[in-house]
Amino acid sequence: MARFFMTGTNIDGGRAVIRGQDAGHIRVLRLRPGEDVVICDGRGTDYRCRLVRSTAEEAEAEVIEVTPCRGEPDVAVHVFAGYPKGERAELLVQKCVEAGAQEIDFFDCERCIARPDGRAMAKRLERLARVSESAAQQSGRGIVPRVGYIPGFVEMLDAAVKYPARLFMYETGPGRAPLKEAIEASLPLTSAAVITGPEGGFTAAEAKMAAAAGFTLCSMGERILRCETAPVLAVSSIMYATGNL
Amino acid sequence: MARFFMTGTNIDGGRAVIRGQDAGHIRVLRLRPGEDVVICDGRGTDYRCRLVRSTAEEAEAEVIEVTPCRGEPDVAVHVFAGYPKGERAELLVQKCVEAGAQEIDFFDCERCIARPDGRAMAKRLERLARVSESAAQQSGRGIVPRVGYIPGFVEMLDAAVKYPARLFMYETGPGRAPLKEAIEASLPLTSAAVITGPEGGFTAAEAKMAAAAGFTLCSMGERILRCETAPVLAVSSIMYATGNL
Repeated sequence: MARFFMTGTNIDGGRAVIRGQDAGHIRVLRLRPGEDVVICDGRGTDYRCRLVRSTAEEAEAEVIEVTPCRGEPDVAVHVFAGYPKGERAELLVQKCVEAGAQEIDFFDCERCIARPDGRAMAKRLERLARVSESAAQQSGRGIVPRVGYIPGFVEMLDAAVKYPARLFMYETGPGRAPLKEAIEASLPLTSAAVITGPEGGFTAAEAKMAAAAGFTLCSMGERILRCETAPVLAVSSIMYATGNL
Repeated sequence: MARFFMTGTNIDGGRAVIRGQDAGHIRVLRLRPGEDVVICDGRGTDYRCRLVRSTAEEAEAEVIEVTPCRGEPDVAVHVFAGYPKGERAELLVQKCVEAGAQEIDFFDCERCIARPDGRAMAKRLERLARVSESAAQQSGRGIVPRVGYIPGFVEMLDAAVKYPARLFMYETGPGRAPLKEAIEASLPLTSAAVITGPEGGFTAAEAKMAAAAGFTLCSMGERILRCETAPVLAVSSIMYATGNL
C-alpha cells in the first residue's frame, strides 16, 4: 500500500487533505477513489485513509484506522559517522535508515577528507534529509530520521556520551571488544550510540580519547569495512541482537 | 599494508615476481624496496613479501611469512539474489563481499525486471567479478567470491537446497520465522544459503515452492528492505550470530 509522510497533508476530524507533491504522486500511481493509502505523521503514528477524490493539486481521503507504525524498531540507534567524501554520505543515510537507525549525525575529525564550509554543508544536509525521507517512506518507517553535522570530534563525543551503550568502531589495536560481545554486554537495550570513522579511520589519539570518555572500542571482525558500510552493519547487528530483525 | 591477489604474481622458491596491473599499482603506491606487501593466493593463504625491486612492468619480492588469511569468516554463506536492474547488482556484490559472503549467484524469477540475454549477461558477470575482486582486495578477504547467474527459480532452489541452513527471505504472509530465530535454530553453522528476491519480491507461488522444498521462510522485521540491502543484512546477521562480527 502507498505510504506518505504528512508533509503535504492536513488531517482534521477524520478527513485528510493531501496537497503538493504527494497529491501528484497519488495521480502518478493512478490511485482511485475507494483505494487506501497510509499517511504517517512522522512521529510513529499511521493513518490508513480511503481516497474520496483526487486531482493533480489535491486529494481528499477519509481516515479509516489510526495505528502505531509497525516499521519502527524498539531500540533507538543514533549513528555518528565521520563525514565521508562524495556520494558515500547518501548511501550511508539510505542504508542506515533502511536498517532502522533513529538519527544520523556526521562529524568532522582528523582524517576527514571533505570539510564543506557552512553554506555548502547546509546544502548537503538538505539533500541528505531528502535521502532520509525517501528511504523512510520506501522502507515503511514511522519517522524520518534526522540527519545532522557536528563540526568536531570532541563535540561528537559530548553528544554521544549520554547513551547507555556507546559503541566506538575502531579498526586496529589491542583491547577492543568484538562488536557482538559489546552489544550483548549492554542488553537489554533501548538506545545506543554507534560511532564510525571516515575513510582513513580514527587516529590512535582519537580512540584513546573516546576510551577515556567511557566509550567501548569495538572490532567488527578481521575484514576492513568501507566507511559507509560499517555503520549499516553495526546498526543491523543491534537490530539483530534486540529482536528487530 | 597493501594487499594483492595473486592474479599477476608468480611465487616460486621464496621469491615473488609481480607483473601487470599489480606491478603498476605498486608504483602508484610509491612502495619501495624494503617495504612489505601481502599477496593472497585467493584460496585463503597470505604471503607477506618484502619488495626487492620495482619497475613499471615488474616487481620482485622476497617471501617473509606464509599465514592463513585472517579476513575469512569461519562460516561459508552462499547468497542467491533475484537479479536486480541497474547498478544495484554492483552494490549488492560489493557489500556482500565486505560483509563476508563466500559466493554470490543471481537468479531469474517471476518478478525480475531485467533479463539480459546470454551475451549481455556474460559481460555483466565479468564486470561483477571485477567488483568482487576489488571489494575482496580492499576489505582484506582471503578469497575472491565467485559471482554467477542461474537462469531460473527452480534451478536456484536445486543449487541452494544442499546447504544445512536455507534461509529464504520473504516479505509477507503468515508462518515466517524471524531471521534471528531461523539462524539461531541452525547454530552451530559452518555454511548457509541466503535467498533474497528482486525489486518486486517473490510471488506467493515461489514462496510456497521454496517452503515445500525445505527452505525456511524468514522475515526481516517490519521494515521493507531494498533488494540490494536485504542480502547484506542477512549475511551480516549470520556473521554476527557465528561470532564473525
